[in-house]
Amino acid sequence: MNFHIDNSDIPAGIKRPNKCTYKGNNIPSSDPLPSLQIPKFKIALCQLTVTSDKAMNLANARSMMEVAAEKGARLVVLPEMWVCPYANDYFAKCSEDLVVENSSPAFRLLSEVSSRLRITIVGGSLPEWSNGRLYNTCCVFGPDGELKAKHRKLHLFDYYAPGDVPFRESDFFSTGDKPTIVDTDVGRIGIGICHDIRFPELAMLYRARGADLIIFPGAFNMSTGELLWELEIKARAVDNQFFVAACSPSRDSTGSYTIWGHSMVVGPNGDIKTSSGHEEMIAIAEIDYSENQLQREIFPLQQLRKENIYQLLEPCAPKHFV
Amino acid sequence: MNFHIDNSDIPAGIKRPNKCTYKGNNIPSSDPLPSLQIPKFKIALCQLTVTSDKAMNLANARSMMEVAAEKGARLVVLPEMWVCPYANDYFAKCSEDLVVENSSPAFRLLSEVSSRLRITIVGGSLPEWSNGRLYNTCCVFGPDGELKAKHRKLHLFDYYAPGDVPFRESDFFSTGDKPTIVDTDVGRIGIGICHDIRFPELAMLYRARGADLIIFPGAFNMSTGELLWELEIKARAVDNQFFVAACSPSRDSTGSYTIWGHSMVVGPNGDIKTSSGHEEMIAIAEIDYSENQLQREIFPLQQLRKENIYQLLEPCAPKHFV
Repeated sequence: MNFHIDNSDIPAGIKRPNKCTYKGNNIPSSDPLPSLQIPKFKIALCQLTVTSDKAMNLANARSMMEVAAEKGARLVVLPEMWVCPYANDYFAKCSEDLVVENSSPAFRLLSEVSSRLRITIVGGSLPEWSNGRLYNTCCVFGPDGELKAKHRKLHLFDYYAPGDVPFRESDFFSTGDKPTIVDTDVGRIGIGICHDIRFPELAMLYRARGADLIIFPGAFNMSTGELLWELEIKARAVDNQFFVAACSPSRDSTGSYTIWGHSMVVGPNGDIKTSSGHEEMIAIAEIDYSENQLQREIFPLQQLRKENIYQLLEPCAPKHFV
Repeated sequence: MNFHIDNSDIPAGIKRPNKCTYKGNNIPSSDPLPSLQIPKFKIALCQLTVTSDKAMNLANARSMMEVAAEKGARLVVLPEMWVCPYANDYFAKCSEDLVVENSSPAFRLLSEVSSRLRITIVGGSLPEWSNGRLYNTCCVFGPDGELKAKHRKLHLFDYYAPGDVPFRESDFFSTGDKPTIVDTDVGRIGIGICHDIRFPELAMLYRARGADLIIFPGAFNMSTGELLWELEIKARAVDNQFFVAACSPSRDSTGSYTIWGHSMVVGPNGDIKTSSGHEEMIAIAEIDYSENQLQREIFPLQQLRKENIYQLLEPCAPKHFV
């Protein structure tokens, strides 16, 4: 099941525009089939409390992932920025080089836990140090302990509230340059981090490439949380008719702003499968991809799309960079 | 202010792809400025009760539009299919040829009322008979009584619930083939009808063409209404950072299914400006386009888009057909 998607491995239905300067692919009108061969499974969202002590955060994450696996989860998700507080003082000193395994305690932890517990881990995000730049990066590990994919946050959270000090994530981090979709033992998963959820094109691109589920580690604040968190999770789910999971740190995490929490799994018709409050907890839900298929039969949205009016184009075919 | 948008009148920022077989335009990365020169104004959504008596429906609509104008509304919106029940038995016999004014009582009514009350009317939708086909069509009239735009529903509601009789709007109606965006005295307005709201691309296209507001006459049923009505209205608003208004018939309208109601205006940050219940009523809200601009300054989403990863393309440049 584990393979890379690159130019030579384009899912059925993806078309190349003819005689076009674009190197990439049109989003197809055909609808890739969901992974119906994957039986129902449990997903666990670890809404953990992040402290300023990295070692403590790693130990806490280990413990919560073990509890999640004991409860039967085959897919375990961590929140955005779980190794250190969301604050500039911590990003560089808590960062890891995710290529050199030995220098990366979080990498080693995720690899060891996924392998020992035989689970798939979508490892939230952490500050990645690479070639003199910082990225906000999510690592996906399979039950063999291998790194399957790395997603660098594509849309950094730049925020300019009137009368307030601007918050510019782009002051600290560089952006990724590729979408990330990965085949795992628990389906084809698209990855976004936090603000990535506000760009419908990314989820639509994942849908066109056959995603069963998209996962957003995220850390919305109190104002965007109340207005937008549940709304955006549900919108991405119903518009694309697949499962969406979003995992946040708990509200009492240390950091420069207060976190909304409310980690959540939403089904393809917009129903909430599980939702946490704002405290530290593990939210567990059952995922059954036949629900995606059912929704697509009830509302055949993809067949109704108007390619003569709008087309979503991928200028560069996606490649994994692991 | 009233002009047609066609190939020769492309808003600033729209790019043509070079050396490309597509005849149309890329959606631009630049962000057309909202219509800040338009002062605050009131919008009224007439959530009227539709009966099987067309003459009564026209009289009722006239009366509600007059009340709305008395309350200060400069923009008045009617619901989807307000001239007859939403049932196949009525579509053909209540249809109108919207080219020949004299044969079209609804056309004459909307023209007369808009001119006399000096208001802009987004005239919900009615069955249009044209060249042997039926369309589900919305007419927009300016305060001079002139027809400014016609939108034929692009995405017909085809629905296949398990164990239920399939409902296929496409059994009765043909689809339109163009998006509709129109400059009016109350801003640049994009039009969709009901199921059109479920396709994010249409709203994104309107945003790229500088819409200040999009309006969806709609008639969701009880199940899609509860799950999706408010969600989709809010999602289109926050993802595109503009106002969205949706106007439904009341729940006690005659028809083949029970209507959700809940006509609603939502601002560019997802806040509900007005919302009706399910009974017959007029919902009024104030619209201030500077809120669009403010949201775009707080969250500069358009500047964060990743044109190297995804691009929304318009294969055919939109033209009005009025």
